[in-house]
Amino acid sequence: MNYRYSAAARNLGSSAVREILKLTQGGDMISLAGGLPAEDLFPLEAVRSAYESVFREDRGVLQYGLTEGYAPLRGTIADRLRHQGMPVSADELLLTTGSQQAIDLICRTLIDPGDAVLVESPTYLAALQVLGSYRAKIIPVDGDEHGMDPDDLERKLALHRPKLLYAVPTFGNPTGHTWSSARRLAVVEACRRHGTPILEDNPYGELSFAPSGQLPPPSLSAVAHSLGCGDLVLYTGTFSKIVAPALRTGWIAADRSLIAVLARAKQAADLHSGTVDQRALEALLRNFDLAGHIAAVSLEYGVRMKRLSAELAARAWEGAVWNEPEGGMFLWLELAPGIETARLLPLALEQGVAFVPGEVFFAGEPRRNTMRLNFTHTPPERVPAAADRLERALAGYRAAASVQS
Amino acid sequence: MNYRYSAAARNLGSSAVREILKLTQGGDMISLAGGLPAEDLFPLEAVRSAYESVFREDRGVLQYGLTEGYAPLRGTIADRLRHQGMPVSADELLLTTGSQQAIDLICRTLIDPGDAVLVESPTYLAALQVLGSYRAKIIPVDGDEHGMDPDDLERKLALHRPKLLYAVPTFGNPTGHTWSSARRLAVVEACRRHGTPILEDNPYGELSFAPSGQLPPPSLSAVAHSLGCGDLVLYTGTFSKIVAPALRTGWIAADRSLIAVLARAKQAADLHSGTVDQRALEALLRNFDLAGHIAAVSLEYGVRMKRLSAELAARAWEGAVWNEPEGGMFLWLELAPGIETARLLPLALEQGVAFVPGEVFFAGEPRRNTMRLNFTHTPPERVPAAADRLERALAGYRAAASVQS
Repeated sequence: MNYRYSAAARNLGSSAVREILKLTQGGDMISLAGGLPAEDLFPLEAVRSAYESVFREDRGVLQYGLTEGYAPLRGTIADRLRHQGMPVSADELLLTTGSQQAIDLICRTLIDPGDAVLVESPTYLAALQVLGSYRAKIIPVDGDEHGMDPDDLERKLALHRPKLLYAVPTFGNPTGHTWSSARRLAVVEACRRHGTPILEDNPYGELSFAPSGQLPPPSLSAVAHSLGCGDLVLYTGTFSKIVAPALRTGWIAADRSLIAVLARAKQAADLHSGTVDQRALEALLRNFDLAGHIAAVSLEYGVRMKRLSAELAARAWEGAVWNEPEGGMFLWLELAPGIETARLLPLALEQGVAFVPGEVFFAGEPRRNTMRLNFTHTPPERVPAAADRLERALAGYRAAASVQS
Repeated sequence: MNYRYSAAARNLGSSAVREILKLTQGGDMISLAGGLPAEDLFPLEAVRSAYESVFREDRGVLQYGLTEGYAPLRGTIADRLRHQGMPVSADELLLTTGSQQAIDLICRTLIDPGDAVLVESPTYLAALQVLGSYRAKIIPVDGDEHGMDPDDLERKLALHRPKLLYAVPTFGNPTGHTWSSARRLAVVEACRRHGTPILEDNPYGELSFAPSGQLPPPSLSAVAHSLGCGDLVLYTGTFSKIVAPALRTGWIAADRSLIAVLARAKQAADLHSGTVDQRALEALLRNFDLAGHIAAVSLEYGVRMKRLSAELAARAWEGAVWNEPEGGMFLWLELAPGIETARLLPLALEQGVAFVPGEVFFAGEPRRNTMRLNFTHTPPERVPAAADRLERALAGYRAAASVQS
């Protein structure tokens, strides 16, 4: 039959990346496309033991739980956030199915069709998809490797009176960029002046490659709290990158009044997220050296990032530039002007390597000669082969281009 | 700060029941209000052992999973549905966070503000809340204990050209009613003629109190499949009531084209549901006598229902009538005309017993002298006390009414 789809469904955006990822499964493909953490670093034994301990508790573990999430885990997360400069309490937290659901619930609660939302350019693809499905008017704000440009932000806050600003200011996706302290302060102050709340998405912030003890600048939420306007920032985090994605546990830290509305939205969406996962995480955090684990994972990711960067450097592709991110999971590669990575991709897949073309991360005019490379998931010993394959794809692209011209 | 909420947030409806349920926690309160399965019947040891087996598999268990859900579990669910007359394959299934998320994703994918949706009257409260948040025009269809009235349905299909019909035709919530085979056929045929898809919500269908081997009539989905229009029905089920709610695993069975769109909506909503839960369920279904467990649980629920019914009968409240449902979790009690159960509730809470006033389940004009009583969660030995407390509340209500009149 002919289903009559909603406008939301018709505005879910392209599933291009999804289709790419399907192509990259199996065979000899080396995928630098996904945003996957390294499986070999998962604390499998500690997680196994944490799940085991859940079933030593009362039978209530299998009953319906609170929409807000398992209270002791909220308490533990609140403790961690307080240590990171965000003085929130357990009842200012809502647990979600990954931080993806945090983004979705916040949009559902704040965004009507046509509402303006400011984003970085480029920004997280799945946030663009969520905003698209709520038919937000997505306005990209100019920026550079230090963060959003305060002048362009000020202009667009005044012009569009946006409902929300969405950003990944620390080890960002897709660029790996980290906003400077000065930019963080400027953005918080501008949004405060204009009364535009900020959705700060921070899945990668704890994956810092700096020597132990060196942290990235305080979160936008911490900055806002220090200025006495903590309710300006809706902060989301997740255990997906610091423990494991399968546990599907993220959170929103926000003002109590907003958490109450978000909880009602979540109740309509799915009643509550998985309690067994939440209880296992709470047990894990009690019994496991998470800080030590994060340090070890970050160290290895830093090594992997350097390895990828070195392989790119060794090949010295004409016009290619990239950053060496200070943390996170992604390296942002810009090729010579004129090379369209979306057209390069099929050649790369033929050679057995996958990446995400940069253009999908732009709400506005894309820079088509960019790509996002993940360095956390591919075993380091395969990185030279990945770079070789990319090089062959580039050679093929250039040969085809010169034939056409 | 002043958050500017979306229309969806402003239309999430009252959280009255949520507030009631909060009041019923702890103390000596006997709650017949929630829709909770019996904790003492959870197959805790089998579930524990199933989770344990998950961690004997590869490390990939902790990685991101497919949006559609763990493929082997989809295969097992497809097998079960085939045995229930619904010939679907694994790729016509999407796993969700409980069947609540199934309802939400279907509405997100089909409903625009102002779209008409037909529902039973009364119907599942949280479905009304979801429909409200998508700002559907909710149209109640007349019905009785045998199901929707085909004449009223025909009229409203023609008049409103609804996007969807939502129903819980088997051991319904809140009434416990089960549609007859004739009504099922009539509803499927009418919706087919008018091109209105049906969302069949079937969380309770396997909890039958009839002697073993006697099943309720085939699902609307099975009826539609038998007529060659299986794509007319979007069927949702869940393990919440037959295994345990905490595992948060439900599903949608629907036409492949619709599943593809729903999967994109789910990707935006939360990427995917908990993989550990899904893998544990798959292991459980391989190693556990689920059919035997469902039979044992249903037998006990039938006993509990009879116990509650007997306690009500023994008290012979003037004008009180109720059904004895053939399965499920709820008994629908109608008191004498003029008694408003929403005003009775505070007196009942004072006496130490909770229920849900029937009026919240109506999209249209409510029958205010009704209430929903859950009989699965309260230990049977406490049911006489629950009935005594209700009786005292009723006496207090009548005394106050006679003073006022």
